Amino acid sequence: MKKKIAIGIDVGGTNTAFGFVDDAGNCIYENSIETYPDKDADQLFKRLFETINSDFNKYSSEYELNGIGIGAPNANYYKGTVEQAPNLNWGFVNVLDIVKEYSDLPSAITNDANAAAIGEMIFGAAKEMKDFVVITLGTGLGSGIVVNGQLVYGADGFAGEIGHTIVDPEGRECGCGRKGCLETYASASGLRRTVYELIGITNIPSELREVGFNHLTSKDIADAANRGDKLALQAFDYTAKILGLKLADTVAYLSPEAIILFGGLALAGDLIFAPTKRYMEMYMLNIFQNKVKIIPSALPGANAAILGASALIWNELKKEK
Amino acid sequence: MKKKIAIGIDVGGTNTAFGFVDDAGNCIYENSIETYPDKDADQLFKRLFETINSDFNKYSSEYELNGIGIGAPNANYYKGTVEQAPNLNWGFVNVLDIVKEYSDLPSAITNDANAAAIGEMIFGAAKEMKDFVVITLGTGLGSGIVVNGQLVYGADGFAGEIGHTIVDPEGRECGCGRKGCLETYASASGLRRTVYELIGITNIPSELREVGFNHLTSKDIADAANRGDKLALQAFDYTAKILGLKLADTVAYLSPEAIILFGGLALAGDLIFAPTKRYMEMYMLNIFQNKVKIIPSALPGANAAILGASALIWNELKKEK
Repeated sequence: MKKKIAIGIDVGGTNTAFGFVDDAGNCIYENSIETYPDKDADQLFKRLFETINSDFNKYSSEYELNGIGIGAPNANYYKGTVEQAPNLNWGFVNVLDIVKEYSDLPSAITNDANAAAIGEMIFGAAKEMKDFVVITLGTGLGSGIVVNGQLVYGADGFAGEIGHTIVDPEGRECGCGRKGCLETYASASGLRRTVYELIGITNIPSELREVGFNHLTSKDIADAANRGDKLALQAFDYTAKILGLKLADTVAYLSPEAIILFGGLALAGDLIFAPTKRYMEMYMLNIFQNKVKIIPSALPGANAAILGASALIWNELKKEK
Repeated sequence: MKKKIAIGIDVGGTNTAFGFVDDAGNCIYENSIETYPDKDADQLFKRLFETINSDFNKYSSEYELNGIGIGAPNANYYKGTVEQAPNLNWGFVNVLDIVKEYSDLPSAITNDANAAAIGEMIFGAAKEMKDFVVITLGTGLGSGIVVNGQLVYGADGFAGEIGHTIVDPEGRECGCGRKGCLETYASASGLRRTVYELIGITNIPSELREVGFNHLTSKDIADAANRGDKLALQAFDYTAKILGLKLADTVAYLSPEAIILFGGLALAGDLIFAPTKRYMEMYMLNIFQNKVKIIPSALPGANAAILGASALIWNELKKEK
């Protein structure tokens, strides 16, 4: 009997990656193509399925394809759509309808952070958990919420936008058009903004004063902090303070067993985990204190997004049983 | 065949009310006894079941008791406990174990706001909804969250503490020992605190300047606002602004179909509903705008808490089928 695998697809603004993943989370094969985000969605999936079909040939004697899971920005699980994704010139498009033109396999789509949450539940750090939250700390702050073992999509399919809860209604300008959203503070970009605010506000000496905003990465800031740069350390502390404050709110809403940090900024390790945990406990309602773990993702970084996308369809197929 | 009814019990700091409720939400009979909150839990339930058994005699030929639902402060649904309720001198006590001494009926317990949410789902304004939030605006701010048709208890049973999300970590002192919790602003007490802050900060003339803090109720403030008192109106506007801001966060987390306002302050009607909705929309992420209703409870005020408590056990009995 052939072994069953699912296709996991991660649509990004630059590249779209895919992989063949078994139900234990082993990625048998992966590849990627350019997204060409200025063109429409149809041309991407046409090229993508040509590549997938051709690449699958060498596996087809041993494996059988079971379904297709897709992670994409601004994706709506209920409707199968991608809606006004800022880094894709697609407008409002029904992706699952397009996929049906190229494949008869069962398919499902959700946004990247929700895919990450299902990935952690099926393959990663949340295998035994019913209630947890995944926070992705990249350019922005995404989140996927799981309650009673189910992803929270809400009435319209767009639940889980913790990055757009408000820290300060008069705060930093956000890409969403409002002010003071959490992701303007707690994300790789937020950390960079904090560095430049501190450069302006304080006289703390720092190697980061040499670098222009557009040339600085969150990894540069982490490296400086690890060399003892006081301004970089203070920037991490401030980021963690805001994140800890809002995660205390998250716990008040949801009482999760764990909060899983994922993505670029989470790679800074104890620079972000230790102070975030400390501030979260400080701001937390007493009944929740010392109950909620903050842990790193257990999905292998290189293909975490593919694993998450494939987990989405594995999870759907499990529900149908 | 006898008609089936459930006992709904609402444990309060002063009185404990109970009623016999059918599965359509009709309260056949209700009564209450004093709680004597300084004494232990056992004495309350001993007296309560004496009264219940005696009162049920005249209904026993027509009705059959099916289960017992209990709403109580700081109740834990998973464990059946009440834990350190501020207005009950019970410490940590397993209420469902005590109930078993007096009755063999299936029983369940949760806190008042969760009971209200289940009441709205089974009998009230959320009958057709799978995703909604109930906010109780009384002395404090309680909340019950429903996702995918299930109440959110979280990993430890205490989820849904939206009243203790933080508006301002340097803000008003809260009874929980922290500062700036939502309930210090958006509740009957919060409205009163706002009136006195405005009396101090502004020179706005107001009839409320005649009244001492300990003598003013939220109804007095609503009455003054309805007479056009500018300070009272401004206090409602400020309350709604903070509530709307934090409900925009609630929508970002959960994308509910509706937010149901319940309890004393909700009786102020459009003084609170209209500006709360306006501010919520103003602070809300664009993808959620004009999607989420803010509506009043549809449980009859007089025995809403009893109906909610009975709904808890009706909901449990439904699950078992």
